[in-house]
Amino acid sequence: MSAHLTHTQDSAENQAVGDVEAYMTRLGQAARQAASRMRRAATADKNAALLAMAARLDEARQEVLAANARDLERGREGGLDAALLDRLALDEGRLDAMIEGLKQVATLPDPVGEIDGLRARPSGIQVGQMRVPLGVIGIIYESRPNVTLEAASLCLKSGNAAILRGGSEARASNAAIAACIDAGLRDAGLPEAAVQVVATTDRAAVGRLIAMPEFVDVIIPRGGKSLIERISREARVPVIKHLDGVCHVYIDASADPDKALMIAVNAKTQRYGTCNTMETLLIDAPVAETLLPRLAEAYAAHGVELRGCERTRVILPQAAVASEEDWATEYLAPVLAIRVVDGIEAAIEHIERYGSHHTDAIVTEHYGLARRFMAEVDSSSVMVNASTRFADGFEYGLGAEIGISTDKLHARGPVGLEGLTTRKYVVYGDGQVRR
Amino acid sequence: MSAHLTHTQDSAENQAVGDVEAYMTRLGQAARQAASRMRRAATADKNAALLAMAARLDEARQEVLAANARDLERGREGGLDAALLDRLALDEGRLDAMIEGLKQVATLPDPVGEIDGLRARPSGIQVGQMRVPLGVIGIIYESRPNVTLEAASLCLKSGNAAILRGGSEARASNAAIAACIDAGLRDAGLPEAAVQVVATTDRAAVGRLIAMPEFVDVIIPRGGKSLIERISREARVPVIKHLDGVCHVYIDASADPDKALMIAVNAKTQRYGTCNTMETLLIDAPVAETLLPRLAEAYAAHGVELRGCERTRVILPQAAVASEEDWATEYLAPVLAIRVVDGIEAAIEHIERYGSHHTDAIVTEHYGLARRFMAEVDSSSVMVNASTRFADGFEYGLGAEIGISTDKLHARGPVGLEGLTTRKYVVYGDGQVRR
Repeated sequence: MSAHLTHTQDSAENQAVGDVEAYMTRLGQAARQAASRMRRAATADKNAALLAMAARLDEARQEVLAANARDLERGREGGLDAALLDRLALDEGRLDAMIEGLKQVATLPDPVGEIDGLRARPSGIQVGQMRVPLGVIGIIYESRPNVTLEAASLCLKSGNAAILRGGSEARASNAAIAACIDAGLRDAGLPEAAVQVVATTDRAAVGRLIAMPEFVDVIIPRGGKSLIERISREARVPVIKHLDGVCHVYIDASADPDKALMIAVNAKTQRYGTCNTMETLLIDAPVAETLLPRLAEAYAAHGVELRGCERTRVILPQAAVASEEDWATEYLAPVLAIRVVDGIEAAIEHIERYGSHHTDAIVTEHYGLARRFMAEVDSSSVMVNASTRFADGFEYGLGAEIGISTDKLHARGPVGLEGLTTRKYVVYGDGQVRR
Repeated sequence: MSAHLTHTQDSAENQAVGDVEAYMTRLGQAARQAASRMRRAATADKNAALLAMAARLDEARQEVLAANARDLERGREGGLDAALLDRLALDEGRLDAMIEGLKQVATLPDPVGEIDGLRARPSGIQVGQMRVPLGVIGIIYESRPNVTLEAASLCLKSGNAAILRGGSEARASNAAIAACIDAGLRDAGLPEAAVQVVATTDRAAVGRLIAMPEFVDVIIPRGGKSLIERISREARVPVIKHLDGVCHVYIDASADPDKALMIAVNAKTQRYGTCNTMETLLIDAPVAETLLPRLAEAYAAHGVELRGCERTRVILPQAAVASEEDWATEYLAPVLAIRVVDGIEAAIEHIERYGSHHTDAIVTEHYGLARRFMAEVDSSSVMVNASTRFADGFEYGLGAEIGISTDKLHARGPVGLEGLTTRKYVVYGDGQVRR
């Protein structure tokens, strides 16, 4: 179903916005103006808005669930698959979690205004760096309507204005949630344009959103790889992006076998569809023969399909043949590629060649090898003796997460409030001039 | 003179590189490979390379000056203006400064490997962030040949590989300097591909350099606004850019008049051609009548041309009329726009509307206004009672500067070694798995 068709067929929840370019320009202008108000918003006011949104959502449970039911019905009619429908669905439990999430963001420390490294210079000035909002953040996401609220709350708390563009399949839910956000902002005396939910499913809106550097400072796409690649290619503003997670666990010969087993099983099986799930297991040749059969047994109990290199298949004949393509694949499924390697050098080479620089772990009790792995593996998270599944904003103590960045510049790895801010230099003087 | 013409006419210093695309791809591949070696290079080896380069340059003074003389001659024949010829020219004094610069970078602390914020989490893992090189940095610059050495030294010290593309007018000088860099890297046992100077002036080389995300992690253009805008528009990798500096000093009614005078004169007259020079003076109405005549006298002594708003011209009839365009102009010359404003609110509005978010200062003795200006002005440097001319990597204590970023993401303001690095998450565990 094309965006244009939806636009004309379903005008109730898809507002008639007129010319889409002009509409997006108006959103951009309003966001830019709201951003300069939000930049100086008091922490107390931002927290009050978050709590007011929570209260408004609690009052509007029936409206939100009714809107969600309309989205689900349309989705079923349109032939959405079960996984997408599940991501789209809201229920009382999910609403509870959304309300709780808002309250938690209110309790997080406000990153704005923090000054680091204030030092006196020989000239007599004092120089430091102050954390400040980025400005206007555009977020483009797919089916899950709770992202609307999560993104709004994180952008708000970090002093930014946000323009949110959700998936067309969630448009009724998003509109109902947007009403709660607006009301909460009004209750707290903050500008409603601090969070704007794009009220059209016309795809041209995305094209315009990512090409207004005068109004938008950064785009954060959340969704499938193809969406993110397209946005990165076409954007005229910086993009904080999250591509795939081809994550590795390398079990060195020096590993504690029990830790190795626990970590390798947890990293693969605790959840299959997440980006920090291990996709390839690398195992050092001297311990392959003893550990692989134990691992295979554990994976079999979880129904994980194994694909191995030749040396793996000598030990585990039940494993399928891993092709060159397997090493670079993010399965997001109960499938695991296994390769026997000769030591850490070969493991790091494999990770560098086939990995996606997301999260990689070593299991070892050897001090020097642990240090080397941590220094040399160029990924957003590197770990010793821990499951890759820990690569997550909450587990890292960020308190919240807008996504995981696989970029190198600005924010790398899980992105919390700090990743939505930048730092400017502050200089305090008493009349100093440059000689 | 087109790049193609130069290419065929001057083959001595413009190597026959064959197919430019293929040549740049080879440089990219070699850089990517060198980057993974440089990532783990010991601080001592990097410093040894810097000192070896200094020694090699000292030995090669005659060759470098002879090459520079050829560039200057070609420049004069080609009709380069005096300012460009001055920027292109090397002499013993400039060579001394370049050698000294290398030694200073060797004394700077190595940013690579520093771990921040390592904290225990309830799960038992410890999480922190380790500073690591960006990878491969492409630097595109114009006439000044000493940039070749500066850029090489900063990229090297921060553990990156660099691909340097200098201006065609400096090609002989750059080739001679590149030979010293290569020799220094060899002396220290580091890969020569850690610093590669593009050996063709064909413009297609730039087009390819900025569009190889598989080999290049970031582009830093140094040069005029049009060069930087073109590169930003066409790049397929992140760009750390420096656009214009329309810097302001706002003198509040609460200012100490002597400090105001000293700062406003220094910010404009200490140097005219620098990006942190004040271009517009904003003055609070209650003190305009007493301060503007004293300021005008000082500016007259420096030969600065004044352009004022209507209220300014009532007090200073000698000032020309400032047009709407003047407020947004980076003069880089002894010209100053002056506007009388009604208080800090109007000053901040003016800065937000016309400024370039580079460097802005307030002169005040009022605590609350100082705090407000620092919080609300959204520029890469904000100052109280100090000259805008302090916005500089050396004055800020970065020890070195690859440029000043007017971007918001990643690095903002003067960019030193830290701006050439990024941070990855490090997780230390003892067998922890996710529940």
